[in-house]
Amino acid sequence: MQTDSLSDRILKGERRALARAITLVESNRADHRAQASELLAQLAGSGRQALRIGLSGTPGVGKSTFIESFGMMLTGQGLRVAVLAVDPSSARSGGSILGDKTRMERLSREKNAFIRPSPSQSHLGGVARRTREAIALCEAAGYDVVLIETVGVGQSETVVSELSDLFLLLLAPAGGDELQGVKRGIMEMADIILINKADGDLKATATRTCADYAGALRLLRKRPQDPEGFPKAMTVSAVEEQGLEQAWHEMQFLTRWRRDNGIWEANRAAQARYWFDQEVRHALLARLDTPQAKAEMERLNAEVSAGRLNPARAAEKLLGTLS
Amino acid sequence: MQTDSLSDRILKGERRALARAITLVESNRADHRAQASELLAQLAGSGRQALRIGLSGTPGVGKSTFIESFGMMLTGQGLRVAVLAVDPSSARSGGSILGDKTRMERLSREKNAFIRPSPSQSHLGGVARRTREAIALCEAAGYDVVLIETVGVGQSETVVSELSDLFLLLLAPAGGDELQGVKRGIMEMADIILINKADGDLKATATRTCADYAGALRLLRKRPQDPEGFPKAMTVSAVEEQGLEQAWHEMQFLTRWRRDNGIWEANRAAQARYWFDQEVRHALLARLDTPQAKAEMERLNAEVSAGRLNPARAAEKLLGTLS
Repeated sequence: MQTDSLSDRILKGERRALARAITLVESNRADHRAQASELLAQLAGSGRQALRIGLSGTPGVGKSTFIESFGMMLTGQGLRVAVLAVDPSSARSGGSILGDKTRMERLSREKNAFIRPSPSQSHLGGVARRTREAIALCEAAGYDVVLIETVGVGQSETVVSELSDLFLLLLAPAGGDELQGVKRGIMEMADIILINKADGDLKATATRTCADYAGALRLLRKRPQDPEGFPKAMTVSAVEEQGLEQAWHEMQFLTRWRRDNGIWEANRAAQARYWFDQEVRHALLARLDTPQAKAEMERLNAEVSAGRLNPARAAEKLLGTLS
Repeated sequence: MQTDSLSDRILKGERRALARAITLVESNRADHRAQASELLAQLAGSGRQALRIGLSGTPGVGKSTFIESFGMMLTGQGLRVAVLAVDPSSARSGGSILGDKTRMERLSREKNAFIRPSPSQSHLGGVARRTREAIALCEAAGYDVVLIETVGVGQSETVVSELSDLFLLLLAPAGGDELQGVKRGIMEMADIILINKADGDLKATATRTCADYAGALRLLRKRPQDPEGFPKAMTVSAVEEQGLEQAWHEMQFLTRWRRDNGIWEANRAAQARYWFDQEVRHALLARLDTPQAKAEMERLNAEVSAGRLNPARAAEKLLGTLS
């Protein structure tokens, strides 16, 4: 494969070339990794940047419908939209979010849209690297908006928020005692909370839920990356395509404010350092990934858990066997 | 120094021996570290366990007064109480929380109480290890309750919650728009939120603040480690010594429930594994702590931040220079 011509085709915005390049960064084969690394190095100079929007929401809140409606609105404005997914659960379940493009039938036929299902494999660290590299490819291909979708599982929101310029949390209306179960710590990442399904019978409930979250957000400390009034809770209806333009308006306002205040660039630089740091740690800790080290760690763990050995001494013993 | 006799004196509950042992675990000198390690190994077999209570609250909420009143109530019931502090800020500020025992005048004169100011030094990892070892020493010395105090700075709450059986968050009453500024992510750790200063003019405000937090807690997902009705928000007045017995009653109820359901022991075992894991990571990452590695990391970081090098490739390059 000539990565040179592949990079040219990506820079021209060819979707098939982009899809092929993403397959390359997703591969575990050493020769593919080398090619991917080369390709990314070639494309690093393009200078193109997309708005990276992270989106989280548990199954059933209407995430696919939202992405379709929101994506159609953006392409209707002449913007090019890429949709990626971070789905650490697919490794176990065998399924994958976004795996079924028929759930976004209209958007998947749009020529200015690119939808990529999550790779159904691997641990979160690997998923994060692949997604990060897929984002870089989409940016080089000239996409204006990259939507990175995830589902409320474990650490995947942290990964997505470290890959995004802004982070949306999509929730369903919940009446009275029927509580939402928003994972602790996820609310803290949200720049905008969207209460979906603000239509028909659920409209009043959605408005009430929105007020509840607005109240909860006010109880949290103001973050330096937020202008007055953010984080914000809003209602939308993906089905009736209501509130999407207002939501997009708020996202643009927030982005502009962060750009004007140097926060946007500082955040990207901090994310780059974060991922570099993560990659370094990952590579170092991989040295514990031998059968010998694992067995020793298991043995020491049992001692520590039982209170017979203190953690610091156990660590000394383990490291002594390593080098 | 004969650690043998020191361990005997600790097991007898001698406060001066305990203080001396804590000084030993706080020391950075290699010979002290070795003695501390030896001492901890000797005491590991004591089988004594205290209830470890983490306590966080920003300056001004009345933490010292609360600890004094609460501690006096516990010693009044014949319990032995130790108070420790995790204060990563003291390294920079030069000050230290709990440094001024006069703020707990009555408790510091109690023969069944032991108060230890935070060591004014070092990074959070070091503070965590020293605190963990100080807790082990207090337990061996037969203390029934170990209160671990921290102030809302950075990661110190995470450290304290990983050292505690239960976690209290102390807040001041806040009226209307005058919001609390509870750090995102800290509310998630709290088992009981205590609104202090529920006395005099602030009583009504405290009750309202308590209701606000109770509402916010209900919006969060139920945790497996909680019985019905937890996490819980309550009002107390440390100055008037109101609500302290009810709070203690709830702590005991929660502890009993967790013990009966195997959660208490599972949590301790998980914490031991967590700290072992942290110690191992810490020791491995210390290999990056050479002038050479730091310079190379700095150089690569700049490349990565500027978008000229992708994080995975940068990590490969760095690790290549290490081994």
